[in-house]
Amino acid sequence: MAKLQLVKIGGNVIENREALADFLADFATLQGPKILVHGGGKEATQLAEKLGIPVQLIDGRRVTDAQNLELITMLYAGKLNKTIVAKLQALGCNSLGLSGADGNSIRAQKRPTDPIDFGYVGDLTQVNDSFFKILLDQGISPVCCALSHDGKGQLLNTNADTIAATLAASLSAHFEVSLHYCFEKKGVLLDLDDEHSVIQTLNKSSYKQLKAEGVLHTGMLPKLENCFAALDAGVAQVRIGSPKMITESANYTQIIN
Amino acid sequence: MAKLQLVKIGGNVIENREALADFLADFATLQGPKILVHGGGKEATQLAEKLGIPVQLIDGRRVTDAQNLELITMLYAGKLNKTIVAKLQALGCNSLGLSGADGNSIRAQKRPTDPIDFGYVGDLTQVNDSFFKILLDQGISPVCCALSHDGKGQLLNTNADTIAATLAASLSAHFEVSLHYCFEKKGVLLDLDDEHSVIQTLNKSSYKQLKAEGVLHTGMLPKLENCFAALDAGVAQVRIGSPKMITESANYTQIIN
Repeated sequence: MAKLQLVKIGGNVIENREALADFLADFATLQGPKILVHGGGKEATQLAEKLGIPVQLIDGRRVTDAQNLELITMLYAGKLNKTIVAKLQALGCNSLGLSGADGNSIRAQKRPTDPIDFGYVGDLTQVNDSFFKILLDQGISPVCCALSHDGKGQLLNTNADTIAATLAASLSAHFEVSLHYCFEKKGVLLDLDDEHSVIQTLNKSSYKQLKAEGVLHTGMLPKLENCFAALDAGVAQVRIGSPKMITESANYTQIIN
Repeated sequence: MAKLQLVKIGGNVIENREALADFLADFATLQGPKILVHGGGKEATQLAEKLGIPVQLIDGRRVTDAQNLELITMLYAGKLNKTIVAKLQALGCNSLGLSGADGNSIRAQKRPTDPIDFGYVGDLTQVNDSFFKILLDQGISPVCCALSHDGKGQLLNTNADTIAATLAASLSAHFEVSLHYCFEKKGVLLDLDDEHSVIQTLNKSSYKQLKAEGVLHTGMLPKLENCFAALDAGVAQVRIGSPKMITESANYTQIIN
């Protein structure tokens, strides 16, 4: 089975011009089939402010109303996605930007409004893995933004970590997939204030224990749930760490079953 | 040789929700390989105003500075392109949105700054026709916005009529191409105030004569130049008319050599 590298980057890389340039240069050097999934970052909030679009939060989570969906479609699928793709082309990496609607690549259903109506938010239902396979077999690297569609004409805001995990799981039917979650730390930390406290390997039972003990930062929990779900679904390898981990054999936590 | 239908729509269709829905329903019914190219419309000006981004005009033509390029990237490649693609998916048409950077599909060079610096504007140099052919052979309909790239990391604002003509010309190597320019009239008019004055067929010599006589509206001249260039480059059929012409055998001017 051919290997596939699936890399997810978040706001910390997207928002920093130099960090993004460094990361893309590394990504371009990766040999073989590869996919990039990118989040959005804080620019959506700034753009909403500029445009006078109110941002509603429930339990600290953003509500995606029609205006905010339009805004993130402009930002994620437009500015960020196309900037990344143009830069990768300059680095000799033939990439192709995708929302979930493009090529019917990523389908979702709108999240039920009960108990909380988060608006136009999607829960993934289906990945068009044969479409991704066609692109990858042509030497084209898909670059996915955090938007899915419902097949009925509606785009949906979708968590980029979940898109990455679901893509990795679906493509495990065709490839030996390595999933890399890049973020601002050098791995999962035992102590958030000590960047040398990176956990080298984390399995499900130690995760449960650390979670029960309240050692892990709450923001890390959904990411780790995605990691274990990916492993359960047949993904060969899952790592959380700094963007540098995609080219260097350091700076990450290996997640194992 | 298989037939390919290449349809270009402009602002008048894009800006009107019902007109766009009608057009997309028609486009979705077209059988066989097809490509949609869309312009941007006036929303770019409105968004620039909202964001306080100045719009500079030289000789009535817009200058694309860095801020305006970012804005049209959000609008054309983001909001408009993805809205169209999501709606086509709902109509059973498997479409894929593209800027010129995606799949290295449409290359251009930045227009020389002498005599006039129009900013980040591209003059087309190359179409990746084999990439389009792969998509079309998979039953996927490309939806192209009016952005190209220079291969060096720079996106470039590019005239949608020219993109349509150049795509049609390049794909004539693989297909018998019909190029449809949809706009707000029922064809090229002899008298702008009389919508019944549609010219049924227009060839190069009658075009030259009407142009010399000042009969044709100046806004129509670049469109017609694109039409004749396409015919010269091997495009089988070129029409200018209302969006309805793609499904009805009326409402257009046939351009012939």
